[in-house]
Amino acid sequence: MTRVVATGTFDLLHPGHILYLERSRALGDELVVIVARDLNVKHKPKPIVPEQQRLQLVSALKAVDLAVLGSETDIFETIQSLKPDIITLGYDQHFDPALLKVELSKRGLDPKIVRIEANEPCELCSSRSIVAKILSRYRGRRF
Amino acid sequence: MTRVVATGTFDLLHPGHILYLERSRALGDELVVIVARDLNVKHKPKPIVPEQQRLQLVSALKAVDLAVLGSETDIFETIQSLKPDIITLGYDQHFDPALLKVELSKRGLDPKIVRIEANEPCELCSSRSIVAKILSRYRGRRF
Repeated sequence: MTRVVATGTFDLLHPGHILYLERSRALGDELVVIVARDLNVKHKPKPIVPEQQRLQLVSALKAVDLAVLGSETDIFETIQSLKPDIITLGYDQHFDPALLKVELSKRGLDPKIVRIEANEPCELCSSRSIVAKILSRYRGRRF
Repeated sequence: MTRVVATGTFDLLHPGHILYLERSRALGDELVVIVARDLNVKHKPKPIVPEQQRLQLVSALKAVDLAVLGSETDIFETIQSLKPDIITLGYDQHFDPALLKVELSKRGLDPKIVRIEANEPCELCSSRSIVAKILSRYRGRRF
């Protein structure tokens, strides 16, 4: 049984998320998704959608066998308990696979790291573009 | 085989949508979802997310066996071709079930109409509240 683990914030769900998760799922027999905690999103704006709600939506997707919230204190803790055979990275996730390998190895893990390069070129295929569209529609107008 | 049909816009997907679709699916053996066309959303603000993208997300949900875009010219056309045994209405969908029955009957259809009363009391369980949160976070700030 090949367990694949994917990770991400999954704020304002869009087809880019779906593509990443479907491609991840296709690499193994089971896909577990670690959803980032609100507290730990520091490299981009805080999520609009709270973590419990992001978890509920990711759990509802066909591609996802199980979704869990990550640890607030150690981002590797959840990966350690899941013991994945494969970890996938999205095309825009800025982890260095080599550094990731080192950190995982310190914890006794040696999963394959696979970058999912595919992305979905569509009008609103990023959380940022959804926010931008809402702001441009309602700027200076009553809501 | 009991075919259930649910309908909606499904803009900015949230747990209220998931609950409506899961409850709908539980009433039969197959759930087909008719996703409203951009052109036909007139009783509330135009969707933020374009119809093809809303269709993609709804199709990716576990509860959904098939999702299709509705007709742009006759909202009953798709229902007529799907011949549902049950049509579900969300708690906030303002169709009058009696009037709906009359319109369906004119087209030779007599499905059961079931109102899904349940809703999800959560911070961002409406597309409107997601838009409001984005506007309040970024009003007067650079994005």
